[in-house]
Amino acid sequence: MTQPKNVLIIGAGGVAQVVAHKCAMANDIFGEIHIASRTLSKCEAIAQSVADKGSFKRAAVLHTHAVDALDTQAVAALITKIDADIVINVGSPFVNMSVMDACIATKTHYLDTAIYEDPRKICETPPWYENYEWQKRDAFKDAGVTAILGVGFDPGVVNAYARLGVEYFDTDSVTDIDIIDINAGSHGKYFATNFDPEINFREFTGVVYSWQNNAWQTNQMFEVKRTDDLPVVGVQNSYLSGHDELHSLHKNLNVPNIRFWMGFGEHYMNVFGVLKNLGLLSEQPVTTAEGLEVVPLKVVKAVLPDPSSLAANYTGKTCIGNKVKGTKGGKEQEIFIYNIADHQEAYAEVGSQGISYTAGVPPVAAALLIATEQWNVGTMVNVEELDAKPFINLLNQMGLPTRIRDADGDRLLQFA
Amino acid sequence: MTQPKNVLIIGAGGVAQVVAHKCAMANDIFGEIHIASRTLSKCEAIAQSVADKGSFKRAAVLHTHAVDALDTQAVAALITKIDADIVINVGSPFVNMSVMDACIATKTHYLDTAIYEDPRKICETPPWYENYEWQKRDAFKDAGVTAILGVGFDPGVVNAYARLGVEYFDTDSVTDIDIIDINAGSHGKYFATNFDPEINFREFTGVVYSWQNNAWQTNQMFEVKRTDDLPVVGVQNSYLSGHDELHSLHKNLNVPNIRFWMGFGEHYMNVFGVLKNLGLLSEQPVTTAEGLEVVPLKVVKAVLPDPSSLAANYTGKTCIGNKVKGTKGGKEQEIFIYNIADHQEAYAEVGSQGISYTAGVPPVAAALLIATEQWNVGTMVNVEELDAKPFINLLNQMGLPTRIRDADGDRLLQFA
Repeated sequence: MTQPKNVLIIGAGGVAQVVAHKCAMANDIFGEIHIASRTLSKCEAIAQSVADKGSFKRAAVLHTHAVDALDTQAVAALITKIDADIVINVGSPFVNMSVMDACIATKTHYLDTAIYEDPRKICETPPWYENYEWQKRDAFKDAGVTAILGVGFDPGVVNAYARLGVEYFDTDSVTDIDIIDINAGSHGKYFATNFDPEINFREFTGVVYSWQNNAWQTNQMFEVKRTDDLPVVGVQNSYLSGHDELHSLHKNLNVPNIRFWMGFGEHYMNVFGVLKNLGLLSEQPVTTAEGLEVVPLKVVKAVLPDPSSLAANYTGKTCIGNKVKGTKGGKEQEIFIYNIADHQEAYAEVGSQGISYTAGVPPVAAALLIATEQWNVGTMVNVEELDAKPFINLLNQMGLPTRIRDADGDRLLQFA
Repeated sequence: MTQPKNVLIIGAGGVAQVVAHKCAMANDIFGEIHIASRTLSKCEAIAQSVADKGSFKRAAVLHTHAVDALDTQAVAALITKIDADIVINVGSPFVNMSVMDACIATKTHYLDTAIYEDPRKICETPPWYENYEWQKRDAFKDAGVTAILGVGFDPGVVNAYARLGVEYFDTDSVTDIDIIDINAGSHGKYFATNFDPEINFREFTGVVYSWQNNAWQTNQMFEVKRTDDLPVVGVQNSYLSGHDELHSLHKNLNVPNIRFWMGFGEHYMNVFGVLKNLGLLSEQPVTTAEGLEVVPLKVVKAVLPDPSSLAANYTGKTCIGNKVKGTKGGKEQEIFIYNIADHQEAYAEVGSQGISYTAGVPPVAAALLIATEQWNVGTMVNVEELDAKPFINLLNQMGLPTRIRDADGDRLLQFA
C-alpha cells in the first residue's frame, strides 16, 4: 500500500461537486481533500453537500480555499501549503496553463477534463493540444510527475473506448471511430445549457474540425447529421462537431476516420439558431441606444437558468459511446462501447445532474490510478496512451459502468 | 382660399420622413414646413432627402429644430416662435400628452398616429383613449382648435373604412368589423422589426383586448388565428391583436364585434417566441455575471437592424383593410375595404418603406383637410367621427388608393 495522496480540486462548479463527493468516498486511498476556486462560498457549499450526504469513507472534512487559478504562484503556494500530491483541475478551461505551471513548479500530478481555451479566440486551429498543453510535456517529464489531459467522459472515457476498440479488432484494421454523445434527459425548462453558456456555445459557433481520410476536414456546425438507434435512449439525431479528443486520438491511434457527434433536439437547435442568427451569441460588445456597451452572450447567459439549478429536476438518461468499425478475424464488424447514466441517480448520489456526473467521476478514477501507481507514468499523456482496462474496471465500480454491443450481444465490459 | 397653414412635424423617424415629403408636396396649401426632434441631425437628414428629391411644390426649405418633445414649454415656445398652425406628431407615443398640452396652450391644431403610452406600463387597461387623450377633449374645444387622434393608417384610415362600412350597410345592421394588417413584403434580413423594436414588441407582449359581443374580451397574443385569401397578397395568416382603434370605434360605432388582426409569418413568430420565452424581450434589467445591469430588450434592439436601414431593399406589398359584415337591403353580405401599398414605390417616392408610407401619408391628408376647413371641427375627435369621403378621395390622389371588394366586384372607391 502506497502513502495516502492529498488531492487539490480546482473549480467549484457542477463537475467539481461530483469530483469532491467521489474523492471523499475514496479517502482511504487519498489523504486530505481540498477544494479551491475564486469564490470561496461555492467551495463551502460543496463542502456542506459532501458533509450532508456523509460522502467521506473515513471521517474527514473537505478543506476550502479561495484562489485565482490564473495566478500560477498563488496556486503553487497553495499546493505547497497543503502538501497536495494530485491536482484535479475542473475549473474553467481558461486556467489549464497556469495550473499546469504550478504543478510543474511543485512536482505535483495534474489532471484535467477539457482542453485549454484562450478566452480571446472562439475557435483554435488544429491540432489543439499541440498549440498549448503538449508544449509542457517535457517539463512534466523532467519534474517526474504525471499529467493526464482530458480525463472526463468526453474527452476521457471515450479515448479509452477508442483504444479498446482498436485492441478489439485485427491489428491496424479499424477504419472508423464515431464518438456519439447523447443527452436524452429533460430539465423541464424552456431552454438551458448543461454547462456555463459562454463555454457551451463556444463549442458550436466556430468551424467544425473532424479527422477524415487521415486529414483534417472542416464543416459548419449542424451541417452533417446522423441518426442512430442506441441502447436505452432509442433513435437519436446527432451532428458532426469539433471536440477535444480528435486532436490527440488522430496522433496516438492509427485510424483514418475519427469523428465526434453531439446530439441536439429540434427545439435546442431552433433556439440556438435564432440566437446565433440575431448575433446574440456574439462575444463582441454592442452599444445600446443609451450608450451602454454590452456583450450579447453575457446577457443571454444572464437570462438563462443557472446550469447548476437544473440538477434537482433533471430526469432521463445520457448515452455516450464509440461506434468502432474494423475487421475481426478478417470479418467486417461494427461495435458500440458505451455508458448509460441516469440524471436522477446522479443527483441522489452526489447532488449533480448526469452530465456533470459523467464528467466528474473519471478524473477521480484516474487520480486513484495515479495514487495506486497503475497510471503513474511520470510524464504527460492523453487517456488513449494508458492501459484502459483498470480504468474501465474502476469506473464500473464507481457508478459509470461500460457496456459493449457487438456480434455477441450487449453486455457489461469487465476485464479480468 | 384660406391662409397658408404653417406645419410643425414632431419626430424624425421613418414615418416623419414620409410626412415631411408629403407636406413639402402640398406646400401651396401649407405655409412653412418645420421638423423638430431630440436629435437635430436626424431632422437635417430628412431635410436633405426632401431637397434631394425636389419634393417641395413651391421652392422652399424644410426648417429643422432640436426639441425635447416631453418638455411642453419647449414645444410651446417653438410653436410660438415659428407660428405653427398645425402640429403633426409622429414622434414616439410617449410624447403625445406633452405635445398636446403645448398645442392647447398655443391654440394649435394637433394630429397624431398612435395612442399615448406610459413608458412604465407594458399594457394599459381599456379604454385606452379615456385614460389619457380624451381627458383633454374639453381643453381643445375651449381652445377652439382641432385634435385628430390616431390618423395614421391603422389606426386612422381603417377607422374611416369602419365608418364607410357602417354607412354601406342597412342602419345598425353591421355585426362584425375585422381589421386585417398584412405586410407581405420582404426586407431580406434574417429578422427585423418595422418600427423601433422597443415599441414594436410592446404590442405583442401584453394581454390582447378585442371588442366582442359588445364587451372587452381578453386573449393571449398568438392565441387566435385567422386565414384570409386577400387581394394581391394572397392567402395570409393573421393573429388577434390588441390595437388602438378598437378603443374609439367601440364607442363611436354601434357594432358588437370589432377585432384587429396582425399578420405574422411563421419565421417571425418563431424568432419572437424564442426571444420572449428566454426573457430577452423583458424591460426589467438583469445582471450579468460581471455585475453589469442591462435591460435585455435594449440589447435585442442593439443587435437588430435599424428599421430605417431596411427601406432601400424592401420589396413586396402591404395589404391593410376592413372586412365588414352586415345586411344590405336585408341580405347578409361581407365586404372588404382596403389599400395595397408597394415598398419599392414608397422608397422611390419618399425614401421610406411601405409601412412608414402607409402611416405617414394619412396625417398629411388630414392636415390638408384641416387647412381647407373640411375637417376643422374645433374639438378633439377620432377619425370615424369625421366624414370619410373627402379623406378617401384625397388619399386616392396622394398615393394610398382605397379599393372595395363586394358583391359587385373589386374596384377603386371614389366619392363624388
